Amino acid sequence: MLRDSMRLSDVVGTFVTPVFSGIINHDMSAQKNEGMEAIISLAKRRGFIYQGSEIYGGLSGTWDYGPLGVTLKRNIMDLWWKMFVQDRDDMYGVDAAILMNQKVWQASGHVETFVDPLCEDTVNHRRYRTDHILKDKGIDPTGMNMEQMDEVVRTNGFKSPDGNPLSESRTFNMMFKTNVGPVDDEASISYLRPETAQGIFANYKNVVDSFYPDLPFGIAQQGKAFRNEISPRDFIFRSREFEQMEIEYFVHPEKWQESFDALLKDIYDFLDALGLPKESIHELEVPAEDRAHYSQRTVDMEFDFPIGREELLGLAYRTNFDLGNIERVSGRSMEYTIKGTNEKFVPHVIEPSFGVERAMMAVLSSAYTEDEVNGEKRIYLKLPEHLAPVKYAVSPLLKNKPELVEKAREVYQMLKKKHGNVMWDDNGNIGKRYRRQDEIGTPYCVVVDFDTLEDGTVTVRDRDTTEQTRVKIEELA
Amino acid sequence: MLRDSMRLSDVVGTFVTPVFSGIINHDMSAQKNEGMEAIISLAKRRGFIYQGSEIYGGLSGTWDYGPLGVTLKRNIMDLWWKMFVQDRDDMYGVDAAILMNQKVWQASGHVETFVDPLCEDTVNHRRYRTDHILKDKGIDPTGMNMEQMDEVVRTNGFKSPDGNPLSESRTFNMMFKTNVGPVDDEASISYLRPETAQGIFANYKNVVDSFYPDLPFGIAQQGKAFRNEISPRDFIFRSREFEQMEIEYFVHPEKWQESFDALLKDIYDFLDALGLPKESIHELEVPAEDRAHYSQRTVDMEFDFPIGREELLGLAYRTNFDLGNIERVSGRSMEYTIKGTNEKFVPHVIEPSFGVERAMMAVLSSAYTEDEVNGEKRIYLKLPEHLAPVKYAVSPLLKNKPELVEKAREVYQMLKKKHGNVMWDDNGNIGKRYRRQDEIGTPYCVVVDFDTLEDGTVTVRDRDTTEQTRVKIEELA
Repeated sequence: MLRDSMRLSDVVGTFVTPVFSGIINHDMSAQKNEGMEAIISLAKRRGFIYQGSEIYGGLSGTWDYGPLGVTLKRNIMDLWWKMFVQDRDDMYGVDAAILMNQKVWQASGHVETFVDPLCEDTVNHRRYRTDHILKDKGIDPTGMNMEQMDEVVRTNGFKSPDGNPLSESRTFNMMFKTNVGPVDDEASISYLRPETAQGIFANYKNVVDSFYPDLPFGIAQQGKAFRNEISPRDFIFRSREFEQMEIEYFVHPEKWQESFDALLKDIYDFLDALGLPKESIHELEVPAEDRAHYSQRTVDMEFDFPIGREELLGLAYRTNFDLGNIERVSGRSMEYTIKGTNEKFVPHVIEPSFGVERAMMAVLSSAYTEDEVNGEKRIYLKLPEHLAPVKYAVSPLLKNKPELVEKAREVYQMLKKKHGNVMWDDNGNIGKRYRRQDEIGTPYCVVVDFDTLEDGTVTVRDRDTTEQTRVKIEELA
Repeated sequence: MLRDSMRLSDVVGTFVTPVFSGIINHDMSAQKNEGMEAIISLAKRRGFIYQGSEIYGGLSGTWDYGPLGVTLKRNIMDLWWKMFVQDRDDMYGVDAAILMNQKVWQASGHVETFVDPLCEDTVNHRRYRTDHILKDKGIDPTGMNMEQMDEVVRTNGFKSPDGNPLSESRTFNMMFKTNVGPVDDEASISYLRPETAQGIFANYKNVVDSFYPDLPFGIAQQGKAFRNEISPRDFIFRSREFEQMEIEYFVHPEKWQESFDALLKDIYDFLDALGLPKESIHELEVPAEDRAHYSQRTVDMEFDFPIGREELLGLAYRTNFDLGNIERVSGRSMEYTIKGTNEKFVPHVIEPSFGVERAMMAVLSSAYTEDEVNGEKRIYLKLPEHLAPVKYAVSPLLKNKPELVEKAREVYQMLKKKHGNVMWDDNGNIGKRYRRQDEIGTPYCVVVDFDTLEDGTVTVRDRDTTEQTRVKIEELA
C-alpha cells in the first residue's frame, strides 16, 4: 500500500492527512504541464501508452499499454523481481487472486475507513470531494474531519462549481464493489483489491507452512490493484487501475530497525538501476503525527515528476498491525516459532511498496530529453540500455537493394537471437529512422550499407551522442 | 476467448452447445478424482497453489499462487511471450486495462448473450443452472434453448436438489459488474473483462496508427480475466479469476488459411516446449453446426487431464466479426490500407486463445509421477528443466560442519549467479531433501561432502533416474 493513498484506511474516520492527492496539481505551473504533455504525446504517438477504451471515448482513469509500453513495463517489473526476489535467499513470491473474501477488507479496515468525503450539488446531483471544494476556495483541509469540513462549507455558504447549494458530506468507499455467485446480496459482496499487500498477509501462514523460512524473510507480490478515485489525474500517476510491487518483510519485533535500514538501501539500489537521477529523489522522513498510529517509522521516497514533487514509493514499519487484524477476524494464530526454541510471537513487518506506473512515469520523465542536432530540435528517450524496449534497430541503407536487405536481415537475426529486443526498421530514409528510434529510446541503430558488403563493417549510431562509428559485425554483440 | 466458455456469447440467446462445462465431471471416475486430488494436495503442501482467501474459509473459484507456483506460472507465460511475441517479427504486445468502457461489451455481444440459464428453488431461493438440473436427471440439454429446458422441467415435474418446485429460468450474465466513479447508475456500469481478446481489438487501431505493420500481423496480450461461473470446479481448470494468453492475428480476407495453418503449427511447437506428451493432445476440428455462425474453421486442442479430456486451448478463424462490431458501435473505420495501394478492407482475424491455468494444470498433471525407490513410494514432478521453479538445489551433507556449509554456499552462489533459480536446502537429512526436491520437480540436487574439500567434486543427483554422479564444481554449470 502506498502511504498517501492509504491515508484514510490507517486512521479512523475520514480525516484528511497532509500528503494528499492532487493538491500540487491545482497549482501546477504551465511549464510543468508542458513537460507532462510532451511525454503523454510521445507515449501515444510511439505506442507506449494509450488512453483506456479510447475507441469508445475512453474510460477515465484507465490506460492501455502499447507494444513498447508493455516491454518497458515488463523490463521494470522483471528488474524488480530479479533484484527483490530472484537474487535473494530471503524472499518468497506469491500471486494472490484480485477477488478476495470480503472478510479480508473488513479485517484490514478498508470496508469502514478506505473512504473519501463526498458532497453533492443539490440541484444536478453531481458529486465532489468536499476537501477539493475547500481547496478550490483556498482553504487547507489538512487534519479536518468530515463534520469540520461540512461546517466550513456551511459557514461560508460555499456552492458547487455550478453555483448550486451543496449537501452534507457522506463517505464514499474507494473500493470497487462486485458480487460473486448467482445471488446479489450482502454475503456475495466482493471487492477489487485496492492494494496487493493484503494478498500477501492472507498467504503468510501458507508460506510459513510450506517453507518454514527463518526470520527475517519477505513475501513479495506484483499485480493489479484498483481504486475508485473520484478524480483520476496526471496521466498514469493516479489512475483507477494500476499495478503494484509490494513486499511484506517479516521480522523479530526487536530487530525491525536493521531490516528497515537494509531495505532502504535496497530501494536506493533499485532506483539507481532504473536510471533515476539521485538529485530528483527525496527521502521524506514522515513525522510521527502524520504516520499511521501503529507505525514507528515511515519513509516516503518522493520524486521530481513533471507534475511536481510527488510520492514515488513508501517504506513503512507496520508492527504486527496487519497480522493482528487477521488473527482477530479469522480466529487463527499468526504466531511464528523461532526454530529450535519455544520463542513465539506474531512477527512485525516492514513494507516497501512500489507503484509500477509511478516508476514508469519517473523513468519516462527522466529519460525524456530535447536537444538540437544540426539546427533541428530532437526528442529522445535516454533510457538505460537494460530498460529500453528496443536495444538495437537494424536497417539496410536502402530498402530497394536486395543485397543490402539480405545482409541486414542476417545482422538482424544474429542480434535478435542474442538480445531478443531488436527491431527491424526500413521505413523512410535513414534520418527519419534515427528520429523514430531516438523517440523510443533505442540506444543503437545499426545500418548496413555498401561498405558492409566489402569489409564486413556496419555503421553503429549512438542515441545519446548521435555519433556514428564503423564496427565489425562480429564485434557487434 | 476460449471457445467452450464463449459458447453463449457467440450465438443469440441461451442455447446450450455441445462443448459444455462440467459435463464430464459429473461422471468423473474415482480414479480420475484420485489423480487430481494427489496433484492438489502436492500443490498446496509444497507451495504451488493455495485456495484463494483460505484463511477466511476461501472464496469459491479463486486460487492463490505460492512461491513455486508463481515461478512455474511465470516460466510458462514468459515462454509463451518469447515464442509468440519476442522471437517474432510479426507480433505486437499490448496490455489493456481490465476495466473497460461498457460499450466494449455491448459491441461484442457479451452484455446481451454471455449468459447462463438459471432457475430458482421456489422455497429456499437457491439458484441452479437449468442445464445442470437436466443433466442430473439424465437428460442431455445440448442444443436446447431456455424455453425448451423449462418445458422439460415442467413436463417432468423436476424438483430442486432439496425437493422443492423450481421457478422458470432467467438468464444470468457471467460478467462481474461494478460501477466506476462516484455515482452508481446505468452510465457508470463497468465489467471485469471476461476475456482479454476485446482489449486487443480495442487497440487494433492504436497499434496500426503507431506502427503501420504489414499484413499479416498479430497483437498479443497476457492478463487476468473474470467470469462469474455458477459452479467453479476442477481445481484451477474452471475458476472465476484466471489468466489468458491471446492473440488476434490480422490477415487479408483471402489469405486466412495459410496463417491458420502456420499458427496451428506454432501452437504444437509451444505445447512441445511445455513438455506435454503428444499422445495426450487431441485436435478437434469443430464441425460447422457447433462453430460460431461467422467462423469458417475452429480447432480445439483438447488434453487428457486427470479430470478427463477437456479443452486446453482454441484456434478460431473469426472473419471480421469483432472489428465489424467495433466499427458499428464506435462509428470509426477499422479499415486497413495495403501499403502503396488503394486496397482497403477490414482485416479478418485468427485467434489462438490459451488459458494459463489450463496450461499449468496440463504441465503439472503430465509431470506428476509416482514410482518406487528402494521399496518406498516416491512422488516426483518430471518438469522440463526450463519450466522447473528450481533447477538446482544445493546442500551441505551435514549442516553442522562449517567447512561443508561454507563450500556449499560457494557452489550455491556460483550456480545462482548463473541460473537464478537455485535453492539452498539444508533442512533434514539428505534423503528427506531429495524427497522434497523430487516433489517440487528440481532436476538436480548438488551435495557438498568431505570429498568435495579434497578433490573439488560434488554429488549431482538426477531427479528422474535418482542416479548420483560425481562432477567437478567447475563443470557443473
